Amino acid sequence: MNKKQRVVMIGSGNVATAVAMAAAPECEIVQIYSRTLAHARQLAERVNCPCVTDQLQHLASDADIYVIAVADDAIEPVIAQSQLNSGLWIHTSGSKPIDVFKGKRKHCGVMWPMQSFSKQLQVEFGEVPLFIEASTPEAHKALHCFASTLSHTVMEADSHRRARLHLASVFACNFSNHMYALAKEVLDEEQLPFDVLKPLIRTTVEKLEHLSPADSQTGPAARADHKVMDRQAAMLSGDKQAIYRLLSQSIMDHHHHDK
Amino acid sequence: MNKKQRVVMIGSGNVATAVAMAAAPECEIVQIYSRTLAHARQLAERVNCPCVTDQLQHLASDADIYVIAVADDAIEPVIAQSQLNSGLWIHTSGSKPIDVFKGKRKHCGVMWPMQSFSKQLQVEFGEVPLFIEASTPEAHKALHCFASTLSHTVMEADSHRRARLHLASVFACNFSNHMYALAKEVLDEEQLPFDVLKPLIRTTVEKLEHLSPADSQTGPAARADHKVMDRQAAMLSGDKQAIYRLLSQSIMDHHHHDK
Repeated sequence: MNKKQRVVMIGSGNVATAVAMAAAPECEIVQIYSRTLAHARQLAERVNCPCVTDQLQHLASDADIYVIAVADDAIEPVIAQSQLNSGLWIHTSGSKPIDVFKGKRKHCGVMWPMQSFSKQLQVEFGEVPLFIEASTPEAHKALHCFASTLSHTVMEADSHRRARLHLASVFACNFSNHMYALAKEVLDEEQLPFDVLKPLIRTTVEKLEHLSPADSQTGPAARADHKVMDRQAAMLSGDKQAIYRLLSQSIMDHHHHDK
Repeated sequence: MNKKQRVVMIGSGNVATAVAMAAAPECEIVQIYSRTLAHARQLAERVNCPCVTDQLQHLASDADIYVIAVADDAIEPVIAQSQLNSGLWIHTSGSKPIDVFKGKRKHCGVMWPMQSFSKQLQVEFGEVPLFIEASTPEAHKALHCFASTLSHTVMEADSHRRARLHLASVFACNFSNHMYALAKEVLDEEQLPFDVLKPLIRTTVEKLEHLSPADSQTGPAARADHKVMDRQAAMLSGDKQAIYRLLSQSIMDHHHHDK
């Protein structure tokens, strides 16, 4: 058996919390760093390790892995303010390239969990796809080993492909969720409960197990039913109407109508 | 025990099939009518009843309920071409009002299943919300009785509210599914597999059990991260770029940013 990987976690937000909680049973979490003492302390208590909130220069220097799980714009300042050492340095951003480490760290990488974490909903981390990229073979080996202790699904993605995956996830997750939010607004205007939509939403997702989303598309636009589309657009105003028209047109453009 | 309700099904598409299959164990399906003999026969065999494909005037005249489950534009011709009798006549359209029966039938109604049916995926009909509306107290009683044998969730919705529900379902189901289709296109360009998005899609839906969709919104637009949004929009073209910009703006407009 190898000895446990020693991990320093920089950050205390949703991603940092999810990664630290998933790593805690398998690794030794050496420190949690956060600019905000209360946040660092909260997470440190959950994973039973010390917290630090003073200068980044004073991080433990002998850990195996340094995980930078902070807001995108804070990644480069963290790298600049912390000390070079022999550890593997990784960040967890979907949209920042590995180049942010260029000239600053030799053994570095990215481990992007494709998931939307929130404090309110615990996610089974083992099910979260992790996309990894590393600067050197040694870095890759250490990162792959670390990622595999956290999730069943570890995949390679360089910064270019990771950016694509991130963009796709905006459509599949953020935008589909916004469709639910707009549906709720449509119902709220008539005091109708959002709950009635849930069986339909679940079926829409279940269909993806059997059909491609394009093949399972239904509704007025998929059948080019202009009467219904005009009637529905007329019930809307503002951004909801613009979205209705643009998405209906897009669905029609993606479907070839024989009839 | 009341005797079984006697049902004539007019139509043989996805909704007609789902309703007939759900009704078969509890009701007596008297006839399946379809303009296309092969379709009528196929469904009639599944529910073990005669099929008819000749003139609508020759439908059995003594059924309790006539279910018109055909395309929206075919509903009024069906009513015009069939004979008035003492049965309850209903249609199953989300967007057609009850008025289509005006002057043609006294006991009539609408039973709209809020679900997207397809041949490829069997839906547990008992879980499908049914929205009903009827012209008379007698019609309402018979329709409520019929609907309750099919589903656990029977709700009242007049034509105005049903139109709202239908519109909301377009956002929640058709448009969210189109977001999956666009996400798949983004991945296809790099030969990345759509399957990697499924855990994220499932979590997005699971969150709805705990939070309103607006409260669970995440992503670049929700945090007004213009750098990421500009970078992502630049990776797109055509309708995907227009959709990206419009939906991102809409998400920003719906979120009040304190920071």
